[in-house]
Amino acid sequence: MRSHLAEARVGRLATVGTGGQPHIVPCCFALSGDTVYSAVDGKPKSTRALRRLENIRADARSTLLVDFYDEDWDALWWVRIDANGRVLSSADEPRLEFDRAVGLLRDKYEQYRVAAPAGPVVALDIVSWRGWP
Amino acid sequence: MRSHLAEARVGRLATVGTGGQPHIVPCCFALSGDTVYSAVDGKPKSTRALRRLENIRADARSTLLVDFYDEDWDALWWVRIDANGRVLSSADEPRLEFDRAVGLLRDKYEQYRVAAPAGPVVALDIVSWRGWP
Repeated sequence: MRSHLAEARVGRLATVGTGGQPHIVPCCFALSGDTVYSAVDGKPKSTRALRRLENIRADARSTLLVDFYDEDWDALWWVRIDANGRVLSSADEPRLEFDRAVGLLRDKYEQYRVAAPAGPVVALDIVSWRGWP
Repeated sequence: MRSHLAEARVGRLATVGTGGQPHIVPCCFALSGDTVYSAVDGKPKSTRALRRLENIRADARSTLLVDFYDEDWDALWWVRIDANGRVLSSADEPRLEFDRAVGLLRDKYEQYRVAAPAGPVVALDIVSWRGWP
């Protein structure tokens, strides 16, 4: 499960709004120890694209899924983590964890080496793992 | 947005557990009018794979995301619906909607023509659409 999660190029992050409405967004991320880091980056955003940050600030409970789809349904797999989310800002003092997260993301994604994500960064502290099959 | 959703082969469905924990699972689905149908099928399940049904029965609020990932980040897109979910069983009387949903899924997926999904079926009544970019 760990290698599937570490190597996946994209995941889907679900959080819950203050009214109880679930929210889901695709995201790039990097795994380090028991924490997943994902950054708000320069990709254009819809008006609600920062909903993930609002949600996590109000309720840390979140979940990230990585999965493989193929028309050969015998080849499918997924890995899911339940996590407690935190929001890290470049304005945090000290910003060691923010800087480390951005470094991890730049190590994994060449696109982030061209243009570093400005953040904020979402840190997902893993509570449990689940995988299929 | 509609054609992206209709043509996507896989989506990710997020629901919320009774304790407030978000849950996410990949799923095949078919779009008909303002409703998305997805079925529990013969793919092997982890012990919590029916969590989506428990969650929707307790809280209808759900969301489905389809997205395209590519290493060319200028090519990315996603479409998301917020929806109210219902669970349809083959034991429902009348089972017209259940049968129609299975028919739609078999029209879209050759794999379901080989082996029809036994269900239950999740019906997601679309409340709102959002797309990016």
